[in-house]
Amino acid sequence: MSEFFDRHGPMLQAAVSALHGRGFWTPFPEVPSGKIYGETARADGEAAFRAALDRPFDLPGHPESHRLGAEQSPFGPALGITYPAADAAALIGAARAAAPALAAASPESRVGVCLEILARLNRDSFLLGNATMHTTGQAFAMAFQAGGPHAQDRALEAVAMAWDEMTRFAAQARWEKPQGKAAPIVLDKHWTLVPAGVALTIGCNTFPTWNSYPGIFASLATGNPVIVKPHPSAILPLALTVRVAREVLAEAGLPADAMLLAVDQPGAEITKPLATDPAVRLIDYTGSNAFGDWLRDNARQAQLFTEEAGVNSVVIAATDDAAGMFANLAFSLSLYSSQMCTTPQNLYVPEGGIETDRGPLSFDQVAQGLADAVDALLADPDRAAGICGAIANPATVQRIEAARGVGRVIRPSGPVGEGRTASPLIVAVTADDPAAQAECFGPVAFVVAVRDGDDGIARAADLAARKGAITAALYDTDEDRIARAVAAFAAAGVNLSVNLTGNIYVNQSAAFSDFHVTGANPAGNASLTDTAFVAARFRRAMWRRPAAA
Amino acid sequence: MSEFFDRHGPMLQAAVSALHGRGFWTPFPEVPSGKIYGETARADGEAAFRAALDRPFDLPGHPESHRLGAEQSPFGPALGITYPAADAAALIGAARAAAPALAAASPESRVGVCLEILARLNRDSFLLGNATMHTTGQAFAMAFQAGGPHAQDRALEAVAMAWDEMTRFAAQARWEKPQGKAAPIVLDKHWTLVPAGVALTIGCNTFPTWNSYPGIFASLATGNPVIVKPHPSAILPLALTVRVAREVLAEAGLPADAMLLAVDQPGAEITKPLATDPAVRLIDYTGSNAFGDWLRDNARQAQLFTEEAGVNSVVIAATDDAAGMFANLAFSLSLYSSQMCTTPQNLYVPEGGIETDRGPLSFDQVAQGLADAVDALLADPDRAAGICGAIANPATVQRIEAARGVGRVIRPSGPVGEGRTASPLIVAVTADDPAAQAECFGPVAFVVAVRDGDDGIARAADLAARKGAITAALYDTDEDRIARAVAAFAAAGVNLSVNLTGNIYVNQSAAFSDFHVTGANPAGNASLTDTAFVAARFRRAMWRRPAAA
Repeated sequence: MSEFFDRHGPMLQAAVSALHGRGFWTPFPEVPSGKIYGETARADGEAAFRAALDRPFDLPGHPESHRLGAEQSPFGPALGITYPAADAAALIGAARAAAPALAAASPESRVGVCLEILARLNRDSFLLGNATMHTTGQAFAMAFQAGGPHAQDRALEAVAMAWDEMTRFAAQARWEKPQGKAAPIVLDKHWTLVPAGVALTIGCNTFPTWNSYPGIFASLATGNPVIVKPHPSAILPLALTVRVAREVLAEAGLPADAMLLAVDQPGAEITKPLATDPAVRLIDYTGSNAFGDWLRDNARQAQLFTEEAGVNSVVIAATDDAAGMFANLAFSLSLYSSQMCTTPQNLYVPEGGIETDRGPLSFDQVAQGLADAVDALLADPDRAAGICGAIANPATVQRIEAARGVGRVIRPSGPVGEGRTASPLIVAVTADDPAAQAECFGPVAFVVAVRDGDDGIARAADLAARKGAITAALYDTDEDRIARAVAAFAAAGVNLSVNLTGNIYVNQSAAFSDFHVTGANPAGNASLTDTAFVAARFRRAMWRRPAAA
Repeated sequence: MSEFFDRHGPMLQAAVSALHGRGFWTPFPEVPSGKIYGETARADGEAAFRAALDRPFDLPGHPESHRLGAEQSPFGPALGITYPAADAAALIGAARAAAPALAAASPESRVGVCLEILARLNRDSFLLGNATMHTTGQAFAMAFQAGGPHAQDRALEAVAMAWDEMTRFAAQARWEKPQGKAAPIVLDKHWTLVPAGVALTIGCNTFPTWNSYPGIFASLATGNPVIVKPHPSAILPLALTVRVAREVLAEAGLPADAMLLAVDQPGAEITKPLATDPAVRLIDYTGSNAFGDWLRDNARQAQLFTEEAGVNSVVIAATDDAAGMFANLAFSLSLYSSQMCTTPQNLYVPEGGIETDRGPLSFDQVAQGLADAVDALLADPDRAAGICGAIANPATVQRIEAARGVGRVIRPSGPVGEGRTASPLIVAVTADDPAAQAECFGPVAFVVAVRDGDDGIARAADLAARKGAITAALYDTDEDRIARAVAAFAAAGVNLSVNLTGNIYVNQSAAFSDFHVTGANPAGNASLTDTAFVAARFRRAMWRRPAAA
């Protein structure tokens, strides 16, 4: 079945081209507009979400021994949805049964299936936006983008990378070796792509689709059946994804069980038996370093692709646009209440202050400038709610409480709109404060006093190398110091943004252009989406024989 | 310094093109001819080898606390060469000191260095041939090829793959995101390649250069300093390599210590402290599964690329050229006395015999046909010595003794020429004999009685999947069964050769065309040289900033 492949061929070629060139590109519009998605799309999506609540989720033909599901919107209500559940052995068995047919399908067929799934998910972006909002706590505008088109971008990126890699070498060749005056030796050679095995994707609470799609789609495209294990608090966005995938697989004549949903509940997780099953050869994981360590210790039969935690830093060394800098950082800290893996936590500021376009600003003035900018950004309650959203995990709220005590509070955290919410807490600490040496997930920012800009760069880079970091930012006017920062953060394996102002933020990572996570520090061993992310998900086996005369 | 890069640019481009097309190609002639390598090359190479014997090996500037070396030619004499030795900490320290300059060098510079090293190694192929001969026991013709041009081919393949990968994505890009009617957001982005860390290559006794070069050159090209740890019985070929590499590095203005030699002796190996040092992030290993398991358990800070052991099989289901088949297999079994990782061990033959162009042959006739072909091949003593060479490791001789007792001896092993030698032992066993379920390294072949061709295919593929295999061969005339074998061996991750006769053998794996080892069964997790072999040896870190107005 190459109909899907043919239908989406131009999109695939454009995606491959974008990957290589790394300019701006996307086929999935990020604006939740009726003009783009259809005039009734917004209402239809919300209605579809409402219709899914308080009832069993339908996943035809899926292994099911019982029903599970206890999702609760961070904005308030319980979702009331139950999902088909099965034990690890049943899921592994179903995946293994689906494996041979998926392996035997051509790369065109599998990639075509992936592209069609993405086209249908894009059509469902409003539904996915609502589902993401009410499982993660993201405000709708962000949930639409991050749960919908931006996640679809990252999925397409993985599919394009997989396609590029599967077709990188000739699938067959004639090998003709000269033999001096004798006739040459002529062999015909053929290579078969051999998928690695069953793939497991372990999702997170905050970005159930965005963080899971790359692994899911990279594995599926390269022929590995995928068991999707959502966070128990954020099942719906991935259940919707699995449903679409199973429909498309079946339409393509492939086993629907090439994509399975592994639902569990806190206290009775099935992640461990799944991850340690000998049939599971690929694991994509987003989550804590602690469980990452557990997987490294125990799931050693599998290749592990991780995004874990880290401490992202900003070094404020100087600026020629203080207002722009403060406004930009205020948005970075406020967006989704600092629950992004890319949100800065530590802001290093010289204890003697910095030079700016307003003249010198003392350390306290910089800290206060930041607090004022957050206050200004969040002054309007509706706007504040639309930026901050809600807090996904109750533990995050407790963490804010604890952080209050570690230093001088520059800006208190407070509620923003309905549900479990919190605006950024800003606390000033000394450079050696232990609080600033580890991740404090959630809306907590430490303004860290350092000797000077270079000291801040050195501390931020060192922390990144030791504890991991996904992003770093620098505000500076000294080109020599900027060059030193570029080298230091590269050596620490962190992506660096310099002097961002306006409508672009250090938190943002654009598919096809920004590699997300470098894989070169403890924040993760995988990069979305580089070659290493796809290359070992399959192997090549050859057969060769003398060419027919 | 891009002079080296410019000089060898056409060779690099041709190598990249060959990698993708996978036809026959090599820039390094395999014929040890004076017409190609210079009329005095053979004599010069032998003289250089003689001159190296019985004296300290000169490696200027190399860390050295003492001298070690006790190599003994399998053909007889001790080499009497001592090498500079240092403990693991000193070697790691020297490698780390070299790392920043190597990382800062451009890909062009590092790849240029690699290509120049290879050009000089090619010039030294006769010396390398002698060194390989007297450390491995390969007869000279084979030692020249496998230790010289074929190893250089595999190195160049790794360099070309690394170059292709390092340049796969744009190194810088302008990212311009439309903002409706407002001005677009425009960022300039730059990517820095970040090497993984110190690389360790652990060599083997039988193919010190061929098996080590891919890892050495893949790591060096991608910016990782390499510590080369030879097998204590096969140091010289790698010491010569390290010397050339250090010379070229220094000429390019890079630290010579980006390539180091780690010499040790049996009973006082330094492999473990090297492999477990936190600075070591890449390990290329060729050797036993037992030490492979040790590395997996203990060197968990490093990415591990392995070629380990397996059981290679031939299924003899039918043939329309019995004489060609027997002659071909006889050579495969005799070449280097079956000490290649690609040599077949188990030959599955239907208990009821097979159809051939000579009419039906019984099981015993097939076994005897094979024995007769080996006898014929080795009838002339000089020719026999030139094919079989000598036995690298005394333990192999003991293994032949033990194998005699496990079944019905079809052909006894015997001496071939001077030194520690042994011709192939051929033993008939039943299908379930434990002897045929595991590797028996050396000149031992089991003719295994099976029900029919499909039974042989199933047993060979199953054994490959469980115990590993690098090669498989099939002789058959039934195209349907051939197709079933293609599928079965691909699923087991084994490269299959069908109906080879004449001057091409299942043992042979040609760079730029045959991926050596699939990585898909226990015989190894790495494939020479696919994308996965190079892709994770470095990472990419970005810096981005608003484009200048």
